Amino acid sequence: YLPLPLSSLSLCTSFSPSISLSFSLSLFIATMRDLKRKDKLVEAAGDAYGKTLSLAVLDVCTDESVKQCINGIKDRHVDVLINNAGIGLVGPVESISIAEMKSVFETNFFGVIRMIKEVMPDMKKRKRGHIIVVSSVMGLQGVVFNDVYAASKFAMEGFCECLAVQLLKFNVTMSMIEPGPVHTEFESKMIQDVRQKEFPGADADTVNYFKNVYLPSSVDIFETLGQTPDDIARCTKKVIEQGSSARFRNLTNPLYTPIVALKYADETGGLSVHAFYHMLFNLGPLMHVSMKAMQYLTCGCLRSRTISPN
Amino acid sequence: YLPLPLSSLSLCTSFSPSISLSFSLSLFIATMRDLKRKDKLVEAAGDAYGKTLSLAVLDVCTDESVKQCINGIKDRHVDVLINNAGIGLVGPVESISIAEMKSVFETNFFGVIRMIKEVMPDMKKRKRGHIIVVSSVMGLQGVVFNDVYAASKFAMEGFCECLAVQLLKFNVTMSMIEPGPVHTEFESKMIQDVRQKEFPGADADTVNYFKNVYLPSSVDIFETLGQTPDDIARCTKKVIEQGSSARFRNLTNPLYTPIVALKYADETGGLSVHAFYHMLFNLGPLMHVSMKAMQYLTCGCLRSRTISPN
Repeated sequence: YLPLPLSSLSLCTSFSPSISLSFSLSLFIATMRDLKRKDKLVEAAGDAYGKTLSLAVLDVCTDESVKQCINGIKDRHVDVLINNAGIGLVGPVESISIAEMKSVFETNFFGVIRMIKEVMPDMKKRKRGHIIVVSSVMGLQGVVFNDVYAASKFAMEGFCECLAVQLLKFNVTMSMIEPGPVHTEFESKMIQDVRQKEFPGADADTVNYFKNVYLPSSVDIFETLGQTPDDIARCTKKVIEQGSSARFRNLTNPLYTPIVALKYADETGGLSVHAFYHMLFNLGPLMHVSMKAMQYLTCGCLRSRTISPN
Repeated sequence: YLPLPLSSLSLCTSFSPSISLSFSLSLFIATMRDLKRKDKLVEAAGDAYGKTLSLAVLDVCTDESVKQCINGIKDRHVDVLINNAGIGLVGPVESISIAEMKSVFETNFFGVIRMIKEVMPDMKKRKRGHIIVVSSVMGLQGVVFNDVYAASKFAMEGFCECLAVQLLKFNVTMSMIEPGPVHTEFESKMIQDVRQKEFPGADADTVNYFKNVYLPSSVDIFETLGQTPDDIARCTKKVIEQGSSARFRNLTNPLYTPIVALKYADETGGLSVHAFYHMLFNLGPLMHVSMKAMQYLTCGCLRSRTISPN
């Protein structure tokens, strides 16, 4: 399926309207929970809509919706499955209930498993297919106050590491895409919400570190290192086009490579823990200045730089 | 709290009767879901039982049980929390329901989070404490057919990587212990059960690879590289004694270091995926011979070698 042949069909969970993928001669199904919200996507799709791009309803959180979505596809034949649905959660662990944590896992982890379980058996039978999971750099390295989100992405990385070896035997390819921060409405809304939120159960020191140390650093990092949804889409497109020669791991943002390297350089884990601690609690103001300097020096071009898996 | 002072109290979830920890001048609470099954533990504890070691009921899967257990401790004061409760799951993903997967996460992931949420706020207030999580090498590197178990341990690693940085600010130490295979009744029973089990939903090829390629390799690895529960207990004891200077990551079995190094050596993930694939599907019989040779050459002494975090 490289290059994508006429028959190739890609299915993407929770398609972002701001992501534009143009595949000639292939069919693309974008899914969303509620088709009433399709307008932006239809507009972005332009001529492709109704020709090579169609829409389907899908809620990855229920078995029935997943089954119905796949049953609605001709012969249930999916060549490329792109698992993009995901939700975020940030804040002190003390103020997050187990139920809230489980809802993050329901979408970010079990949602992906539901899709894989539904699509993988046919791929294995056909000895052909590509499963793509949009993970995160936080699936490779934890970041303070992102405990639950990182856990859900780590879980996905672990699951797929196991499955990738088995799938190789069936000529089915598994690829992870690990973006860093991405500028979306969703992200800026989350940061705004979090600023106003109370954090019952967390002590004053912890809330202070979260709101006045972590959040400003996080905003700096977003503004300086953040990519656009288009950057992620381009990376995803390349991974699809590479087919069975695609890498297992694909960090979309080369600026994050040193962070992962730091982890891998020290099996005791001490290097990462202390570096992050130092960066956050001791170098916070310095980091703010250097991030501002970076923004100035790069004139924002870092943000729009196309980042490829190569 | 190094060395452990008189007041130090350690609490261990799901204490294994075959693990013996002897701490002079400190109190130890071992927990189990059902005290009717305490006989082996009481016997192993000998004189310590009733003096420095006491027992408490704890089911990490319910909020009430966790709260009750901690409320039953004087001033709710816990110096060292050892999260040891965990369950295994192995087999083709196709034959594992989402409900079964969730029950693994309930114990291995959310069980630990419940304990941490209950004990951590007091530790942060006291600016003192040590949280130990018994993870697994499968929390660092996935192994084929262990998809769900590995995912639950990866999740734990990710969660704790985030939390460790914040806890450092409160002088609370977080340590992971990553054992490889450990010889317990539990493990040998699981392998026996799995041999007889049917795997509805999985295709014949997958079941064949699982039963006739993976399982024999797995048994070989267990017999050759497996450690005893005492090895893990000794490593845990050292980590406790090191207190705030303890490492974040502690692989109990140095024979697994190359596997983790393999992963860390290649950011694309290809090296690990292909090495495991090759080892399992192409070198299976050769591996069997070399494992047998290793067992013969080492006269079983690898198994009983004391493995320390240093």
